[in-house]
Amino acid sequence: MRSTKAPVKRIKSEIPDIVIGRLPVYLRTLNLLASEGREVTSSQELGEHLGISSAQIRKDLSHFGEFGKQGTGYNIPYLCKQLQKILNVDKVWSVVLVGAGSLGNAIANYNGFESRGFRISAIFDEDPQKIGNEVGTIVVESINGLAERIKELDAHIAVIAVPVQAAQRVADYLIESGIASILCYAPITLSVPANVRVEYIDPVIHFQHMTYYLG
Amino acid sequence: MRSTKAPVKRIKSEIPDIVIGRLPVYLRTLNLLASEGREVTSSQELGEHLGISSAQIRKDLSHFGEFGKQGTGYNIPYLCKQLQKILNVDKVWSVVLVGAGSLGNAIANYNGFESRGFRISAIFDEDPQKIGNEVGTIVVESINGLAERIKELDAHIAVIAVPVQAAQRVADYLIESGIASILCYAPITLSVPANVRVEYIDPVIHFQHMTYYLG
Repeated sequence: MRSTKAPVKRIKSEIPDIVIGRLPVYLRTLNLLASEGREVTSSQELGEHLGISSAQIRKDLSHFGEFGKQGTGYNIPYLCKQLQKILNVDKVWSVVLVGAGSLGNAIANYNGFESRGFRISAIFDEDPQKIGNEVGTIVVESINGLAERIKELDAHIAVIAVPVQAAQRVADYLIESGIASILCYAPITLSVPANVRVEYIDPVIHFQHMTYYLG
Repeated sequence: MRSTKAPVKRIKSEIPDIVIGRLPVYLRTLNLLASEGREVTSSQELGEHLGISSAQIRKDLSHFGEFGKQGTGYNIPYLCKQLQKILNVDKVWSVVLVGAGSLGNAIANYNGFESRGFRISAIFDEDPQKIGNEVGTIVVESINGLAERIKELDAHIAVIAVPVQAAQRVADYLIESGIASILCYAPITLSVPANVRVEYIDPVIHFQHMTYYLG
């Protein structure tokens, strides 16, 4: 499948990654407006919601086509569908979660993933006390079966929710097992090959950004 | 205290917010190197760790002073201390947490906050079944006492870990109670006054950023 995508990939790489990073935020806001029964919005309204200039929003979207008309704005359901296609979330992706502690439990019990394109399909831990436990509707599996299960589930994305001391080891194992997209909750910067994409969730990074301004 | 800070605030506002957002990431990486017993690093090494150019790192840091010498690099403990001062995390800030569900529990049980400048000082919920429960060492309080407790604790930062339906209401209440810095885990864009800073943690935003490239 990948080889047929080569021309698209080339085009994709020309769009700045920071623009791509804003598309999910636009989609979230459009879904919120849709859930309020709204049919039409404007770059001005979106901009006010998000604290981004309307010109920036129009410019970001213009990379992908013409989604609105001058004076009439954007049709919300249509733009949602287009953004879902662009972001490849017009399907549901299997995500594997490593770490069945309280954070792993919270992530697995969150029921807002599936409507946005993702499903936690398996949970792994190395603690024998946790293996076999149920987290929501999922039974915690031994991390020894990770590689095989990733193939079975055709999973391309993993979440690391283990203590910081274990995070690099788990990342190495995930990458060996064929995962190239990792969301890491441990407060560490992982060493990974250039073809692996890691994103981080670390509340302290946000707190420290805030306290700069709190002086 | 705030009025004496006016000149600093003016200088601060000249430094792009995106630069400020990178400082906590530099600090996290420097602390990691320090924990490995390292004394000296370079913008090249930091850049390789973080996937940021060494020129960008030098430029970012140059907003705040001269921290390294050509050829000898950065003294890690010294640069950590300076970044802690710049980010105002050479003290510990009280943070209030709203939401005592599984996510709130995971956040409250995380023991990596204090060494980085933060302490979850109180947890609030509106569910009578949760009020009075212990989360780690903290007893869950009724949200009715929020305003008073925020003053008592001199808290300036709040975390919202409630379901999406309750998030705007909780944010309004926090803001009325004097909070102007909010970290929101609910998948929503909050409507807040211009003087209130909100940052968001939403794993789906990261997942969708990844799936764009997974096509």
